[in-house]
Amino acid sequence: MDPRIREHASLLVHDALEVEEGDDVIVKAAPVAEDLVVAVFEALGDVGANPVAQYTNRGGRAIRAYLRAHDGEFETPDHEMALVEEADAHIHIRADANVTETSDVDPEQNSAFQQAQRPILNERLTDDWTLTQYPAPANAQLAEMSTEAYENFVWDAVNKDWDEQEEFQAQMVEILDGAEEVRIVSGDTTDVTMRVADNPTLNDTCSHNVPGGEVFTAPQPDSVEGEVLFDKPVYQQGREVLDARLVFEDGEVVEHSASKNEDVLTEILNTDDGARRLGELGIGMNRDIDRFTYNMLFDEKMGDTVHMAVGRAYEATVGEGNEQNESAVHVDMIVDMSEDSRIEVDGEVVQRDGTFRFEDGFEE
Amino acid sequence: MDPRIREHASLLVHDALEVEEGDDVIVKAAPVAEDLVVAVFEALGDVGANPVAQYTNRGGRAIRAYLRAHDGEFETPDHEMALVEEADAHIHIRADANVTETSDVDPEQNSAFQQAQRPILNERLTDDWTLTQYPAPANAQLAEMSTEAYENFVWDAVNKDWDEQEEFQAQMVEILDGAEEVRIVSGDTTDVTMRVADNPTLNDTCSHNVPGGEVFTAPQPDSVEGEVLFDKPVYQQGREVLDARLVFEDGEVVEHSASKNEDVLTEILNTDDGARRLGELGIGMNRDIDRFTYNMLFDEKMGDTVHMAVGRAYEATVGEGNEQNESAVHVDMIVDMSEDSRIEVDGEVVQRDGTFRFEDGFEE
Repeated sequence: MDPRIREHASLLVHDALEVEEGDDVIVKAAPVAEDLVVAVFEALGDVGANPVAQYTNRGGRAIRAYLRAHDGEFETPDHEMALVEEADAHIHIRADANVTETSDVDPEQNSAFQQAQRPILNERLTDDWTLTQYPAPANAQLAEMSTEAYENFVWDAVNKDWDEQEEFQAQMVEILDGAEEVRIVSGDTTDVTMRVADNPTLNDTCSHNVPGGEVFTAPQPDSVEGEVLFDKPVYQQGREVLDARLVFEDGEVVEHSASKNEDVLTEILNTDDGARRLGELGIGMNRDIDRFTYNMLFDEKMGDTVHMAVGRAYEATVGEGNEQNESAVHVDMIVDMSEDSRIEVDGEVVQRDGTFRFEDGFEE
Repeated sequence: MDPRIREHASLLVHDALEVEEGDDVIVKAAPVAEDLVVAVFEALGDVGANPVAQYTNRGGRAIRAYLRAHDGEFETPDHEMALVEEADAHIHIRADANVTETSDVDPEQNSAFQQAQRPILNERLTDDWTLTQYPAPANAQLAEMSTEAYENFVWDAVNKDWDEQEEFQAQMVEILDGAEEVRIVSGDTTDVTMRVADNPTLNDTCSHNVPGGEVFTAPQPDSVEGEVLFDKPVYQQGREVLDARLVFEDGEVVEHSASKNEDVLTEILNTDDGARRLGELGIGMNRDIDRFTYNMLFDEKMGDTVHMAVGRAYEATVGEGNEQNESAVHVDMIVDMSEDSRIEVDGEVVQRDGTFRFEDGFEE
């Protein structure tokens, strides 16, 4: 077995989670991720935890067949709920045999199923949990990479010195935590400002997402003004939205367009009121993620990018007394900041063309 | 997908079990059985049941890694117990990527783990459950067959007219149900008698085992007299016992031998007192199972064979007031009855050289 798989497993069990003897753990994975499941089981055996391995119910052949055959009246299964209620920790390993496996499932059918699964997801979120990616060939294909190159990409992004990364990111957290207002400028297509005053900034390293590598906070929902062109594709339910452009007034999207699949963008924005406002501003700081791979777990942490999400804000990023944006959706979209771009905080440039104020080579 | 896989899945969901809308079902399988899992999910979607797919925790790479890393102090996991307690039905699909995967796990370690899993198994036995086999290449290899030939073998044995099979077997149940004593004679190496009076005979068709195809009852533990040479290998924890021979007096094994791995046989018999007495007499009646494949799920149902198990008797085969043999083990062993053999019930020949009294060509 590739030694990087054991390193990956150890990070999940000992760093992202801190699994202890006697902990009841659920490992959710697709068959194609078996190598990492084996390494995780080894690590769990070593600490004396109790694993149950469950097939993921997203995206595989079995769930496709199930969803196509079902009449659509889904319920929340009692036995799965009982399993999750009694569990202490959750390791969710993403990997696909075919990323378009559910492309011929009626999206409404899928959405009704996910709705019925929602209480189980919510219950899981009350425990320790971590989400990661195994570099399966189909995921390499989505990233337009060879399997070996994609393996290198994934494990470079995952198996790193997370203490060092945390310190690096903490410098940006410190800047944002005291800030009132953030302005993002890129070329002549993006110039947007938002208030973040009193909203905490989180330092995401090796915890709920492996890899981590972003710092993120919530804009105040009514405060966003300006326009943004998202350079990177938005990949939603198997469809790619290109050149998504949003114009904000008083926090609300008042104009939008896209060069491809604009209707998908419209659909997202029309989900509910909160879907037309920002719920997150994130700064990607994992420089081992140096390319876009159509996988938000990696893309949003890419070095030299920022992302904004329309929809739901994370509770932990909303300060006491501030409004939390509510929505059924949370869709991240990415702006490339590597050229002709800057992040300003309270009028001071803190990043220019991807280089932070606290790094060598920064030019104010 | 091979249409026989859908037929197999339909038998599991609608015949072996009678899954209904809203039932909470656990599907336990190894990744190599994915095709059958997909077909089962389709059938479960069609009836509106709620499946959770769990990786089997026997025999795979993950459990091997876990068992080798663990200190040996296993406990019964609360979350897995909760899952099983809330479930209505269980479909357990056997299939291996490598049947010798756990050959380098300390047998004591494995046994301690199974011991901790025992309450979960017992809980499962209180629900509806069925056990079946998917024809994976490694299982074909164990049977010394090509994968395609093994697929044909498995699906011929599984996908049959079970109503017709049940009627065929019922004729033998009727004979045994009123019987006092059974005598099994084969060549000059096997001649054994046992009392079965008042012990019910069960008709196993398409229920807990798919395929089924035996009728079975329990001998009275103290009644077995004579000797038996088991012609077919006894395959136990990856080791093959050849030419196992048992001599019984007052129901107890007083002498035993084997031409290969006699120590394995000795170990089985020394487990406890009940391991030296018979717990089952079964008559194999599934004629589509026409060869030995080192898989007891099939072997014990082979046409023209009988099997006897040392160890635990099934409760349902023990009549009121009769003694139930108790043991931690239940090891089936097979006698070929196709030549120079007969089954006598209360002094009358009911099968000679594999042909039953109720069949054409029977010669008393």
